Amino acid sequence: MAKYQQEIEVRGHLIDSSILTKIFDRVMDLEGEFEVLEINIGKKKKDESYARLRVQGKSQKQLDRILDLVYREGATSKSQKEVKLKFASKNMVMPDNFYSTTNNRTQIFYKNSWIQVENMMMDKCIVVKGNTAKCVPIRDVKKGDKIVIGETGVKITPPERPREGMNIFEFMGSSSSSERPTQHIAKRVAEDLHRTKKSGGKIVLVGGPAIVHTGAADAVAELIRTGYIDGILAGNALAVHDIEYATLGTSLGMNVHDGTLAVRGHRNHMDAINSVFKAGSISNMVKTKKLKKGIMYECVKRKIPFILAGSIRDDGPLPDVITDVAEAQRKYKEVLKDAKIVMMISTMLHSIATGNMLPADVKVIVVDINQPTVTKLMDRGTWQALGIVSDVGAFLPLVINQIKKLKK
Amino acid sequence: MAKYQQEIEVRGHLIDSSILTKIFDRVMDLEGEFEVLEINIGKKKKDESYARLRVQGKSQKQLDRILDLVYREGATSKSQKEVKLKFASKNMVMPDNFYSTTNNRTQIFYKNSWIQVENMMMDKCIVVKGNTAKCVPIRDVKKGDKIVIGETGVKITPPERPREGMNIFEFMGSSSSSERPTQHIAKRVAEDLHRTKKSGGKIVLVGGPAIVHTGAADAVAELIRTGYIDGILAGNALAVHDIEYATLGTSLGMNVHDGTLAVRGHRNHMDAINSVFKAGSISNMVKTKKLKKGIMYECVKRKIPFILAGSIRDDGPLPDVITDVAEAQRKYKEVLKDAKIVMMISTMLHSIATGNMLPADVKVIVVDINQPTVTKLMDRGTWQALGIVSDVGAFLPLVINQIKKLKK
Amino acid sequence: MAKYQQEIEVRGHLIDSSILTKIFDRVMDLEGEFEVLEINIGKKKKDESYARLRVQGKSQKQLDRILDLVYREGATSKSQKEVKLKFASKNMVMPDNFYSTTNNRTQIFYKNSWIQVENMMMDKCIVVKGNTAKCVPIRDVKKGDKIVIGETGVKITPPERPREGMNIFEFMGSSSSSERPTQHIAKRVAEDLHRTKKSGGKIVLVGGPAIVHTGAADAVAELIRTGYIDGILAGNALAVHDIEYATLGTSLGMNVHDGTLAVRGHRNHMDAINSVFKAGSISNMVKTKKLKKGIMYECVKRKIPFILAGSIRDDGPLPDVITDVAEAQRKYKEVLKDAKIVMMISTMLHSIATGNMLPADVKVIVVDINQPTVTKLMDRGTWQALGIVSDVGAFLPLVINQIKKLKK
Amino acid sequence: MAKYQQEIEVRGHLIDSSILTKIFDRVMDLEGEFEVLEINIGKKKKDESYARLRVQGKSQKQLDRILDLVYREGATSKSQKEVKLKFASKNMVMPDNFYSTTNNRTQIFYKNSWIQVENMMMDKCIVVKGNTAKCVPIRDVKKGDKIVIGETGVKITPPERPREGMNIFEFMGSSSSSERPTQHIAKRVAEDLHRTKKSGGKIVLVGGPAIVHTGAADAVAELIRTGYIDGILAGNALAVHDIEYATLGTSLGMNVHDGTLAVRGHRNHMDAINSVFKAGSISNMVKTKKLKKGIMYECVKRKIPFILAGSIRDDGPLPDVITDVAEAQRKYKEVLKDAKIVMMISTMLHSIATGNMLPADVKVIVVDINQPTVTKLMDRGTWQALGIVSDVGAFLPLVINQIKKLKK
Repeated sequence: MAKYQQEIEVRGHLIDSSILTKIFDRVMDLEGEFEVLEINIGKKKKDESYARLRVQGKSQKQLDRILDLVYREGATSKSQKEVKLKFASKNMVMPDNFYSTTNNRTQIFYKNSWIQVENMMMDKCIVVKGNTAKCVPIRDVKKGDKIVIGETGVKITPPERPREGMNIFEFMGSSSSSERPTQHIAKRVAEDLHRTKKSGGKIVLVGGPAIVHTGAADAVAELIRTGYIDGILAGNALAVHDIEYATLGTSLGMNVHDGTLAVRGHRNHMDAINSVFKAGSISNMVKTKKLKKGIMYECVKRKIPFILAGSIRDDGPLPDVITDVAEAQRKYKEVLKDAKIVMMISTMLHSIATGNMLPADVKVIVVDINQPTVTKLMDRGTWQALGIVSDVGAFLPLVINQIKKLKK
Repeated sequence: MAKYQQEIEVRGHLIDSSILTKIFDRVMDLEGEFEVLEINIGKKKKDESYARLRVQGKSQKQLDRILDLVYREGATSKSQKEVKLKFASKNMVMPDNFYSTTNNRTQIFYKNSWIQVENMMMDKCIVVKGNTAKCVPIRDVKKGDKIVIGETGVKITPPERPREGMNIFEFMGSSSSSERPTQHIAKRVAEDLHRTKKSGGKIVLVGGPAIVHTGAADAVAELIRTGYIDGILAGNALAVHDIEYATLGTSLGMNVHDGTLAVRGHRNHMDAINSVFKAGSISNMVKTKKLKKGIMYECVKRKIPFILAGSIRDDGPLPDVITDVAEAQRKYKEVLKDAKIVMMISTMLHSIATGNMLPADVKVIVVDINQPTVTKLMDRGTWQALGIVSDVGAFLPLVINQIKKLKK
Repeated sequence: MAKYQQEIEVRGHLIDSSILTKIFDRVMDLEGEFEVLEINIGKKKKDESYARLRVQGKSQKQLDRILDLVYREGATSKSQKEVKLKFASKNMVMPDNFYSTTNNRTQIFYKNSWIQVENMMMDKCIVVKGNTAKCVPIRDVKKGDKIVIGETGVKITPPERPREGMNIFEFMGSSSSSERPTQHIAKRVAEDLHRTKKSGGKIVLVGGPAIVHTGAADAVAELIRTGYIDGILAGNALAVHDIEYATLGTSLGMNVHDGTLAVRGHRNHMDAINSVFKAGSISNMVKTKKLKKGIMYECVKRKIPFILAGSIRDDGPLPDVITDVAEAQRKYKEVLKDAKIVMMISTMLHSIATGNMLPADVKVIVVDINQPTVTKLMDRGTWQALGIVSDVGAFLPLVINQIKKLKK
Repeated sequence: MAKYQQEIEVRGHLIDSSILTKIFDRVMDLEGEFEVLEINIGKKKKDESYARLRVQGKSQKQLDRILDLVYREGATSKSQKEVKLKFASKNMVMPDNFYSTTNNRTQIFYKNSWIQVENMMMDKCIVVKGNTAKCVPIRDVKKGDKIVIGETGVKITPPERPREGMNIFEFMGSSSSSERPTQHIAKRVAEDLHRTKKSGGKIVLVGGPAIVHTGAADAVAELIRTGYIDGILAGNALAVHDIEYATLGTSLGMNVHDGTLAVRGHRNHMDAINSVFKAGSISNMVKTKKLKKGIMYECVKRKIPFILAGSIRDDGPLPDVITDVAEAQRKYKEVLKDAKIVMMISTMLHSIATGNMLPADVKVIVVDINQPTVTKLMDRGTWQALGIVSDVGAFLPLVINQIKKLKK
């Protein structure tokens, strides 16, 4: 058995962030063996820890499988070797043995030094160009790109559990539940948004049409107007319902202020779409004073980028909608660049899309009334996610009220 | 075929309340035939309609099956016959062919006149005593009780769809959805509670512990203090959490006002239980000033009856809990007598129990964050149910705010 | 008041299909008045009914609102007038007062006769060309198209409740519940698929990746191989997971046959995508024998059309994916043409998209483990929808077993 | 600050079972400090680890709060002191400072040695009698009982993550998801039941009425008949529906074998209840041959204990139902004694009740179609729980089929 073994090492907050536990788990999940050769636990809570282990498998295949998993938890081979590269033989084709990325901070050992991989996202490949390395989606791979293959020479640093104070992420501990004091949580979210904004951090909101249906459109419009939102990622439906509400006062034909049905209200949805086509675009509607309030209006007025990604279920869709999803993905990524907080409100489709594009250390706040949706969106292997099972029509106005208090 | 047929008739808002549709449905569901012998549709919306039909089956068994169903929709045999009675042979045993009740208004044809059955509930039997008839649960059946058997001589009047104005029940149309303007719905609920209270109507609240977990305990306490609630039906958990929150400021060990963990907070739940046992009862805790606020406190202070029904999952349970469920059911029914509105908040167990005890014409408002729960509770064959999929921690405070505005 | 009134009439299974009830409802919802001037209820269950009513409002606006709603339930003005048309002033812009369609059978009164509108879908406009009328989405409107405006001269025929025998749609009565005998329902679904197929009816399957995750891919592949499916509507994920499972035996890296983790299994998902890019397309993978089984394989082999619509959350997406959603919508519609049954399996996105494209009389079977998803998809105003809250990984194999028995 | 500190130590699979991580977490959650004084990580996977830490707080109160939490994770004070005891002043009243238990293995340091606490359950107190210690619920506390107070002298041993082979609990890793290969999971569950049974382990089934509604009653009856089940914990509804199905062939009035409605089927539910009252008990029904198959029948025939706990929502309830919930809790506990596996099928109420009574090291398998229910039941701080989001009507028959294969 002695032949199928490998010495690995790992550094960081091994205990605090469960890294060592996960490494032990992976070995045992696959029925491997390990021996702790050296361990040095940080004495105080800020200190780093270090561990060196010998991992054994019953066959080379089993050992490879184990190593594959432990490397993803932050371990590296003790004897570091150069990363292996191979040319892409065609556009949009990766070499067979390509390295598939995680959303964690990643370095490659290239020309005898560690290079940081830029633009980290899950499930992509790594392209090396000169002395730089970049995370690249398959459709952007060009013939001749030098692409990392195998697992050698790649080092991952999982995100550490945040400890910078009693922020909402620590308080909630990455869990989600509908049985929490809603008003208190709204206060904490407001504080986090306020603190992030004050320190210049970027906040992006990903939202679905339930924001309008449940009566939270005014709250979101106010968040934009008061400077808390730096970008909106959504689909056709959010924009259409926002414009129906802003221009006709209805949401799916019901007058929001008193609950009565509007005359020919069933067509208000299509009427809103037609009015945008007539103006040519949402920003033209604002310019020509046809659109005077709401989420889209505030975005145009404050020059906040809003990206509307098309989907197969769209009515219309509006002229502003990017109907090509590959193009929409590129635009989403631009808006997400350097975001500190991403709020995901009542949309599974756009939230999963956004989650796929984010490095693991961006803070994510998910609000949805459906617990399975929240659970699914939280499943990102990160400490930085907060799931709130609540009714956005009641929750977002509470957040706004708390922010107002903080600004006084 | 002609032999297996029966003439039936039906009166009321046949079209408006879908009664005729349901009768036609039932016949066709079972592959029977019908002929409309006479029909007289009310000309204006207040007018009653009348229909006389001949129903046919392919066999006596099929015809019986059809008649069984159409009688439950309000039809009666054209040629009315005396109801049939049989003595109960033992305590708690009904005769084999007992008539099983619905939750609709029911009359029996007895000694040549129609008698109203009192105390209507679903799935019980009818006991005749002198010239009165009463709906009785099996455990209350006594040897020698005269019990209705078969379907002959029984007439059901399904509730009519309410049309008395634009109340919330008409507005929402017995449906439930999470995609509704929450703040508007809270306003409508507040108006309905206020209007009912002003006209002297009784309001009963059925509630679960999520009221406390989500931070809505203060709102419910205020509803009681300001006279909107005439009875509380709950279990052990609501009382325990309310008392933990009122005495220790925590809900499951977390300080509700700032989200921090209390010292030895994990035991606060048990501490609250112990404190009630020490005082002997909840009302003793209030008397001895150990309990000074909250839902239970307000009930004791205002002499509002609260019935805590035991369940197999109880911690403790508190001395005030009725651990015998048959006894608890009797107490629940007493509190529910003559209720006009029943609010069911975040508890499936106690809400289903309550639903089983209510006649079909009592208004029911269901609030829960879990849509399947709301759907299940709404399934009562009534126009008078309103389902709200929302977060009670945010929704109930909104209702309180709206009620305050109405009182000004 | 007398001035704001209108005589309307309606024909069909007024009682059986609740048409008259809905018309009465709409008038009363909006606080209007009605008078039944004439009514003629079909004597036997196959007979049509007829009703003539006078509807009154308190103002012209209120009357218009009422008429708008009752026309949508199948009523028409007694004195029929010519439909009004207006030219589109630009491409992709409808006239202000455009008529917005329902998914019901629709006719227009044009040049003194009733013309059937083709290609009915919800929320579109009607374009008249020569003596034909067609339902057209906004993006296909061309400058100069003659478009129906207002509500005059349009007649809707809501679908009748199906009565052709004890099929599954009657049995379940358009409801959905998780508390049904699963094995019995699987048998009924199998019978309906078998009967439809035998009579030459077209069956389209709309599916999500959970089909593969839950282990139902073999069942769906068999449905295709044995000729039950005439088209597949899906997204990138179904195809990618199907190909990962077919080529590598894993679903998200786990070996499906024994539950063990594959070596470097986390990248199998991306490997499957890369293998398609390498081949150039899914059909090329089949041709070059790289893909030898599964859902996609069977589609290629049997020349069953499969349309993969792009979405913002796609990994890749595969070269076969139509990344432009407007184009994908057109392709979906082609496949749906003349479909008799549409099965919607574990995908909200593609199912809603498909639902929007279907006339109300197509039978829809929805299977999903999440009840709110099923409820949402069933909300189509049709008798022909069947919601099954079940686990597709267990349910679809049951359906296959039942179909095998039927074929013996 | 130096004054508010305490030396603690901990032993066990500190890394593997995340014990050290949790201790670090608790200290940091409460903004305390720690210093690792000594650490000794087991070299191989079977070896125990040991750690000695110094924990500091900013105040005695904060330190107490920290210690309270870390003791619950398995740490103990370095300098072990005698446990403190206080007499109960009354029946059913614990001393103010009572120690509130967890569901983990617990020892107390009494008369200079460690004593194991028997009958561990969550949220109870510890009563010392002679040289034994026992976990006791508040209602069983007698005046004069010696009860543990404070946290001194109590040692907890959290359960270790199971590593005895590739059983289903390791494979699924305590998570729950609806996106798993159902048939494979059914096979694994079957293997675990079979293995446990073969080695003489006790298996208890906790079940709700959806077992009958979804058509899984035959599967459960077969599990009992073939000796896999040693006890049934349920409520009134499971028994009533099982008996309705066994005697009348219907579930809520629908014939399960063909989906048709039974004659007067709406009363079958009540009829089943009446038939048990008539016989006097379920076992009498079996004796008099009125009940010849089903879950209850098999229990009576094989002398498997079944405890039916009453609840406020019961129809009837049956004479066999224990209507006093405190008594029912005692009976549940008797049946659960020494159970190795507990299967919780489609009932939140009885499953939570059971979960509260179980020590942390009993294996729990939860099957429910509603994900939030599964998530809630899994939240027990244990590695030994397996959540399966599936349709029991399809899942349980799959398990039965797999067990049949194993027996060949």
